Amino acid sequence: MDAKREVNWNSWAIALHGGAGAISREMPAEREQACRHALKTALEAGRSQLSQGASALDVVEAVATLLEEDPLFNAGHGAVFTSKGTHELESSIMDGCTLQCGAASNLMTVRNPIQLARLVMECTPHILLSGSGAEEFADEMNVERVDNDWFDTPHRRHEYERFRDRQPLEQEGSTIGVVARDVEGRLAAATSTGGMTGKLPGRIGDTPLPGAGTWADGRCAVSCTGQGEEFIRHAVGHEVSSGMRWGLLPLYESVEQAVASLPPAAGGVIAVGEDGPPVAIFSSKGMYRGLADAAGLFEVSIWEN
Amino acid sequence: MDAKREVNWNSWAIALHGGAGAISREMPAEREQACRHALKTALEAGRSQLSQGASALDVVEAVATLLEEDPLFNAGHGAVFTSKGTHELESSIMDGCTLQCGAASNLMTVRNPIQLARLVMECTPHILLSGSGAEEFADEMNVERVDNDWFDTPHRRHEYERFRDRQPLEQEGSTIGVVARDVEGRLAAATSTGGMTGKLPGRIGDTPLPGAGTWADGRCAVSCTGQGEEFIRHAVGHEVSSGMRWGLLPLYESVEQAVASLPPAAGGVIAVGEDGPPVAIFSSKGMYRGLADAAGLFEVSIWEN
Repeated sequence: MDAKREVNWNSWAIALHGGAGAISREMPAEREQACRHALKTALEAGRSQLSQGASALDVVEAVATLLEEDPLFNAGHGAVFTSKGTHELESSIMDGCTLQCGAASNLMTVRNPIQLARLVMECTPHILLSGSGAEEFADEMNVERVDNDWFDTPHRRHEYERFRDRQPLEQEGSTIGVVARDVEGRLAAATSTGGMTGKLPGRIGDTPLPGAGTWADGRCAVSCTGQGEEFIRHAVGHEVSSGMRWGLLPLYESVEQAVASLPPAAGGVIAVGEDGPPVAIFSSKGMYRGLADAAGLFEVSIWEN
Repeated sequence: MDAKREVNWNSWAIALHGGAGAISREMPAEREQACRHALKTALEAGRSQLSQGASALDVVEAVATLLEEDPLFNAGHGAVFTSKGTHELESSIMDGCTLQCGAASNLMTVRNPIQLARLVMECTPHILLSGSGAEEFADEMNVERVDNDWFDTPHRRHEYERFRDRQPLEQEGSTIGVVARDVEGRLAAATSTGGMTGKLPGRIGDTPLPGAGTWADGRCAVSCTGQGEEFIRHAVGHEVSSGMRWGLLPLYESVEQAVASLPPAAGGVIAVGEDGPPVAIFSSKGMYRGLADAAGLFEVSIWEN
């Protein structure tokens, strides 16, 4: 695993998402522009770090942190509300070289859940820490904590009020995720979310579950977004790898079959493999996403496939 | 999925485990006999229900409840202690016909975690509920709650004291799990545990994670036990199914390769497939287990393969 790897400066690739779901094409032009700008800024940061030789693991953590900080996305500041009007955040990170992974769930006060996930991976014998135990661990690690209402935004409060008043609410997703291949060919994945508007307190979705919402091994790195429960019961993250290993499918086809195994409009998947371009495939109305690689690919999109 | 199924009274099968780990062959004869007796009693209950036509889902829940109630095993009464001297329980159940699953984690007061897992599956839109949110849901469902020290036993307290005093402690496991195929050919799996002695509060292991510690689909039903983090990062539950679907491996070989993919002595797996006998394979010193089927198999064992 730790054998010296060859460096190929033309081999890096990255994909990121800001969620998949019922993203309306009628959203205000201003919001659409802000989303595209946020995706572009995060993608540029990833491109810059990877092209300078940063490790895939460091890049997925750094870019996920940027997206968590952006109030547009449902992760960190900007997280959705639970049925009780609170925020409960979750995250995971996985290193494809070692299969090491870390995750956190039911966080109410940790500003950057993805950073806590990495600390769980590196500083505990465990993979997933939840709730107050996770927050005590955050204190020990001197991770920044905030009040729960620090995560509030007017947009998410409006969605919560629609939920509470039983008005129709299409979940537009907005979970964030990043997958990367670095110049040494290492793969890593990170995912972070506030879950779904109106979820029961205590609900854990696919995001902090390795094999469901996040996966990385020597073959592929995967981050999922959409109806979390469907991604759990189809083990989508691990299924992408299984299709490649057992079925000898190329990355694109393996992601395609994994998304096709889900109910219609369930969401989307981003992935990178050992070589070739990054992949983003979704069955929902849209997926906020960005793809870039050393061959010159650099694109940000929301709807069109 | 709900098409009328053919009934074959000679087709049921069941496997159960009471954990895999460093089970000492020098354990007191009295404890060994008690363990064998408990496994036999649970296996007889499963045999009786399945041979009378009970559904796989009902049987795995009922037999897991029996094992939770037994103070010998690390699930329900008899659960191990966390690093803070408390108990945090977790469980999951999965229906192979529908891929429906339910799970609960970080429970401190729910007497039978496996019953709560089934209620999460049947009465919420979610799969996994954790901590106080899960316990509030338990209240709504009128599920029995107990004080946290109700789970205490002298045996587990002794292990905790060894942990606290930094004396060598070999984790003997004792997570419980059940997999079954009923006379209509339906498959189901259930797993329940107190985790590992000395775990950090908030730690979630493989037990409540579908795809890791528990899995069921149309091909196989799987329950795992051992070093939980290894089962998560190798997605062992889903891997057994992947080996069968993509690799066309028979059940036994698929379980074998999944166990072989783990570090030495990591634990064990029980499984049933669409037909044929149940399977139990482990790499640890021992695994408390029982296997029975309609063809007359009925055996309980701890060490020998």
